[in-house]
Amino acid sequence: MNFPSKLIEDAVTEISRLPGIGKKTAVRLALHLLKQNEVVTEALALAITRMREEIKYCQTCHNISDDLTCSICKSHRRDRSIICVVEDIRDVLAIENTNQYQGLYHVLGGVISPIQGIGPEELKIESLITRVNKGEVSEIILALSATMEGDTTSFYLSRRLKDSGIKVSSIARGIPVGGELEFTDEVTLGRSILTRINYG
Amino acid sequence: MNFPSKLIEDAVTEISRLPGIGKKTAVRLALHLLKQNEVVTEALALAITRMREEIKYCQTCHNISDDLTCSICKSHRRDRSIICVVEDIRDVLAIENTNQYQGLYHVLGGVISPIQGIGPEELKIESLITRVNKGEVSEIILALSATMEGDTTSFYLSRRLKDSGIKVSSIARGIPVGGELEFTDEVTLGRSILTRINYG
Repeated sequence: MNFPSKLIEDAVTEISRLPGIGKKTAVRLALHLLKQNEVVTEALALAITRMREEIKYCQTCHNISDDLTCSICKSHRRDRSIICVVEDIRDVLAIENTNQYQGLYHVLGGVISPIQGIGPEELKIESLITRVNKGEVSEIILALSATMEGDTTSFYLSRRLKDSGIKVSSIARGIPVGGELEFTDEVTLGRSILTRINYG
Repeated sequence: MNFPSKLIEDAVTEISRLPGIGKKTAVRLALHLLKQNEVVTEALALAITRMREEIKYCQTCHNISDDLTCSICKSHRRDRSIICVVEDIRDVLAIENTNQYQGLYHVLGGVISPIQGIGPEELKIESLITRVNKGEVSEIILALSATMEGDTTSFYLSRRLKDSGIKVSSIARGIPVGGELEFTDEVTLGRSILTRINYG
């Protein structure tokens, strides 16, 4: 694309580096910003720079935080005896939005993936074991993706936590709410029969 | 959504102000930026602020420019006898990408729309008349959208330019290249018959 201005070309190039944003969308966004008041672009620029430069990671659970301890780990309303182990910060946000969980979290920062060269030592597993060994925790809920890598990580963690004697569980895998039986893939359906829930 | 960090919340709020970007995409983009090197976010922030603050508009054609005269108006390779009248900067980019046009442009900054309270005096029409009156121009091509507002503006401009005696044309309206006749709407098809091209 030939741009009549180097300034807009630079902006389009930078915007189109974002995931899922192509050249056309980048042009649309750049021209939109051009039409806005300077305050709008300044606020956007400041927000992303501040976020990147000033954000911290919680020393306990490795969640994003404004301080050295995140608001969830600090909160007195949370159940400190349960830790939910997740892959990513995004998963914390997703679980928080369900309003179904009142315990603490532990963000691994990934899952074990030999193909991508990610072994257990690349993840925040040792700090999880340290947290467990402090004796406050009575249950670990593994909330990892239902993929090969997620399952491998869950298996590895359940083995590592075996000796601690605390309860280790995993979030249920089965047909999603609203999902129709006939359109569910056979692996999911098979698993949902194996891990069926007893009513009484 | 409950964010564990005010910094990320601010960034998400600002990003989701962009058109076509919802809360979920904004979270995805913010978390992507978090994972990148600081250089990436800084470059993005700088590019959008500089674009908004330093960009100029060409004094002749009102296209975006790094100087007071844009690269197209400055160029010695362009045909100075033809002016293509467009609504928006985006249209200049679109026409430039066709590589079919070698003349100059004139960006109106909108189209006449009584509903939105945009009259001819809100648009860069007087400066177009001034350019035409200088005598260098021999043809005006109206390249406005095939909407009610676009047609109204084209009609208004053709009337205003009538006395100048120069040729006024409009880009062709008809079935798009690759378009099938049976799926073309009747208005377009009707127009394409009325404005048919003579082969010889």
